[in-house]
Amino acid sequence: MSTGGSSQPSAARIREVGPRDGFQNEPETIPTARKVELIDALARTGCTRLEATSFVRADVIPQLADAAEVLAAIDVPPEVSVSVLIPNERGLDAALEVLDGRSAAAGARPAFDEVNVFMSASETHNRKNVNRSIAESLAGLETVLSRAGEAGLRCEAVISTSFGCPYEGHVPPERVLDIAARLRDAGAAEIGFGDTTGMANPRQVREFFGAAAALGDVELTAHFHNTRGAGLANVLAALEVGVSSFESSFGELGGCPVPPGATGNIASEDLVSMLHEMGIQTGIDLQALIACARRVQEILGRPLGSHTLVAGAIDWHEAS
Amino acid sequence: MSTGGSSQPSAARIREVGPRDGFQNEPETIPTARKVELIDALARTGCTRLEATSFVRADVIPQLADAAEVLAAIDVPPEVSVSVLIPNERGLDAALEVLDGRSAAAGARPAFDEVNVFMSASETHNRKNVNRSIAESLAGLETVLSRAGEAGLRCEAVISTSFGCPYEGHVPPERVLDIAARLRDAGAAEIGFGDTTGMANPRQVREFFGAAAALGDVELTAHFHNTRGAGLANVLAALEVGVSSFESSFGELGGCPVPPGATGNIASEDLVSMLHEMGIQTGIDLQALIACARRVQEILGRPLGSHTLVAGAIDWHEAS
Repeated sequence: MSTGGSSQPSAARIREVGPRDGFQNEPETIPTARKVELIDALARTGCTRLEATSFVRADVIPQLADAAEVLAAIDVPPEVSVSVLIPNERGLDAALEVLDGRSAAAGARPAFDEVNVFMSASETHNRKNVNRSIAESLAGLETVLSRAGEAGLRCEAVISTSFGCPYEGHVPPERVLDIAARLRDAGAAEIGFGDTTGMANPRQVREFFGAAAALGDVELTAHFHNTRGAGLANVLAALEVGVSSFESSFGELGGCPVPPGATGNIASEDLVSMLHEMGIQTGIDLQALIACARRVQEILGRPLGSHTLVAGAIDWHEAS
Repeated sequence: MSTGGSSQPSAARIREVGPRDGFQNEPETIPTARKVELIDALARTGCTRLEATSFVRADVIPQLADAAEVLAAIDVPPEVSVSVLIPNERGLDAALEVLDGRSAAAGARPAFDEVNVFMSASETHNRKNVNRSIAESLAGLETVLSRAGEAGLRCEAVISTSFGCPYEGHVPPERVLDIAARLRDAGAAEIGFGDTTGMANPRQVREFFGAAAALGDVELTAHFHNTRGAGLANVLAALEVGVSSFESSFGELGGCPVPPGATGNIASEDLVSMLHEMGIQTGIDLQALIACARRVQEILGRPLGSHTLVAGAIDWHEAS
């Protein structure tokens, strides 16, 4: 028998994506003040990376039409890196306008620190999602990444359907890694690999990130979904091959609800609970995070999918 | 980086515990005919181990008061091993009466093939659950195991709170393994280790089952709960140290709903989905299993927690 997992990292970095990836899937408009309240609370849980909103067109995602207002109103400690999602050059223009406006105010922290761009590794999914071919998306994002870099912004590029596509099925890992290399060369400091509809399995995840290590000097981030319940098993597999950067959503909000009713992102509370129990530090106060999930559940007025939100943190009060 | 998981088994054995562990937690009485329908359907999914009911006192668990009727009515193929849960000698008497009744019928398969006994590794939990000390439970189960063995029944002994206790916190693995050794010596062919309130983590699971291998000639079964979302991650960790026997419940029924609303057992559909995607055979037809989960959801009239029930099996129709 192998003892397994000998290379387990001692700490992991978590980007909280609920305020963007979670909120954008909510059918009812969340008041800007509630978004600000939640972001400010999340930013005080010990979380150091927070995806706050997105600069997509308001007619495409009306829920996030208040991006500029949210960024103007939030009060996030300087040690928390705020990112915004940018779909294209037009989105970057809007984001840079907000950034420049804030920089004009003396002493203020920047409105955000990072941009997050995205495309799909599947032609069909990319076409359905952004109405472009993979080649067109790559060309467009190369420009966005270059311009964002010139503006002093750190860039993450997320590749959707990295572990399988609901339309095409198998997605060759070589294709995903080729796209990752292009995005890295264009200036992405971090590549996120998205399991958009929860098709990844731990064996595949180990093999994939084992191969992805060849990408070299770029941060590799795993973005798993819990669509078929294996989200944290995939996290474990990624940890075992040295991945220590993850994205998750408080309350288990958001993700890709395909088919309807399916859960998406792994819950930040469940992720933090498991990592802490394994002795992997995140810097996050789990009770404070659960309080944020409880609050968003209250605001949204329906039970959320996060397990630890319901069960509570493990209480080792009698532990030796 | 380690590649991890090199010792992954090529096949796993799954015991479906929904008809006992799941049904007993349902507040509304499920008609006997519906139980029989579901057991007969589960027994035709390719599943080879099925916990069908229990011989607890009817005033303690009224839902399973129809144990004898269920066993008389089900039509389970001979290759499926049927087990029943036995709390004590009185329960064994009742079960043996049913067994003898069936054996009298010429050519019939036995009413059941295995018994499942249980106790807790935590004094407090054992006291609250069966009102006995660990020593008293051990003594009682030794008698039950001995008599069941004489009756030609295979015996599984499940140890609850093997990975932590909601009242005592830490449960020393040495204590769990000592109990396991006693139960093995008393005739248990299989020891199930229950994560009763979902306190296990993958690191602990690897270490625990690594040590449990010293128990020698007894089957080791992992019974994880998904209380905090890490159920399948714990399965993965167990697989990595050679465990290949699991218990789960269709639809994610049952388990230990502590605190109220918390989920319990891992869903059989989610387990089978992950194992198959990893190339680990179970013999189970996932679509047939999902159909069983859909049917029990319909009978119970409320949405169940199983992820794969909602999302459906992964469709690799375009896979290369």
